[in-house]
Amino acid sequence: MNKNSILRLSRYRNALNRLKNAGLVKIFSDYLADAVGVTSSQVRKDFSLFGIAGNKRGGYKIDALLEKLNTILGKNVVQPVVLVGAGNIGSALIKYKGFEKEGIRIVAAFDSEPAKIRPAAKVPILPVAELAAYVKANSIKIAIISVPESVAQQVFDTLRAAGISGFLNFAPLRLRSDNNCVVNNVNLELELENVIYFVNVFEKSGIGIGLDKD
Amino acid sequence: MNKNSILRLSRYRNALNRLKNAGLVKIFSDYLADAVGVTSSQVRKDFSLFGIAGNKRGGYKIDALLEKLNTILGKNVVQPVVLVGAGNIGSALIKYKGFEKEGIRIVAAFDSEPAKIRPAAKVPILPVAELAAYVKANSIKIAIISVPESVAQQVFDTLRAAGISGFLNFAPLRLRSDNNCVVNNVNLELELENVIYFVNVFEKSGIGIGLDKD
Repeated sequence: MNKNSILRLSRYRNALNRLKNAGLVKIFSDYLADAVGVTSSQVRKDFSLFGIAGNKRGGYKIDALLEKLNTILGKNVVQPVVLVGAGNIGSALIKYKGFEKEGIRIVAAFDSEPAKIRPAAKVPILPVAELAAYVKANSIKIAIISVPESVAQQVFDTLRAAGISGFLNFAPLRLRSDNNCVVNNVNLELELENVIYFVNVFEKSGIGIGLDKD
Repeated sequence: MNKNSILRLSRYRNALNRLKNAGLVKIFSDYLADAVGVTSSQVRKDFSLFGIAGNKRGGYKIDALLEKLNTILGKNVVQPVVLVGAGNIGSALIKYKGFEKEGIRIVAAFDSEPAKIRPAAKVPILPVAELAAYVKANSIKIAIISVPESVAQQVFDTLRAAGISGFLNFAPLRLRSDNNCVVNNVNLELELENVIYFVNVFEKSGIGIGLDKD
């Protein structure tokens, strides 16, 4: 079990939802592989790793597959998440519809700037001083960090001490953390720099680049 | 040369800038490795791959290193980028200060909604009908796609035909593309789902997770 196989399970799930909406009831691993852009042996390997059995003749039943994937991915319960840092990126994430669709709910946001506090908003924006108490009282385990780099470590430490064990971090630095939590970094500058670099190399060399992440 | 070594070069560069600001003039690969969180043999391997020579006794000169890394990473020129889709995420990216700091400039944004058009804004928001002509007239090579999933492929095809060869794609789908372009996908749902999944496994098993992406 590793990060890439989890990401693939999510992609299988998305593809299966689309195929189900298109009217399909069963599917062969080959077709699912095509829809996701991996090999069919990869699909079968991933499924067997997670104890999902297929049927060589009839393929997989889409409903049963989705049920199983939803359980594995924790989709059958709403996942409450707090967000710290209601700046540009933070505010966009609060409004982002993609999370809700996936059963993820940002239940509260926190900011240090008094002007940003909105306790009555649909997603309340609260003073950062209330962060630790809120996380503990509501047993929140997951947090999004979208604060400036200069305060990110301090926010991380506060969240960690309050019991958060899963982090999606947008601050462009490597957080000092321990082994009992998971930190997933989304560094927007790096992601874009990477594209620019490959295009520059391509322009100079004329060789096909064909990089498709993940 | 692969994606991960490019990402590491960016991280070396960020660390070196911090170390330079802290007053250092020279650095050993061991120290740089510590600052970035990789092994020193990895640092030396990356540097030799890109033709950067060190000095066993004295270490690397930080200024010379930065100069070289900036050239490799295309930092010595401003990189013009267009953005398509001025919704929540798109608007946040337009205002995001992290790009400008790295020499990346969003020169224009495009949207299909008349209410969003702002030709006189600092970063002009223009009708999507003008997209192809703008890209061609200004020889833009890099685009950010932050439109809804349902129109992402169409926007991609338009951009591709207009000459864009590097894409940072926020729409949660796999774009059908060719081998002469690079598509880097940032799927926010998947990134957060991944965190949630590992925390769920951790909560059930009690085993340390210690996943740190990249």
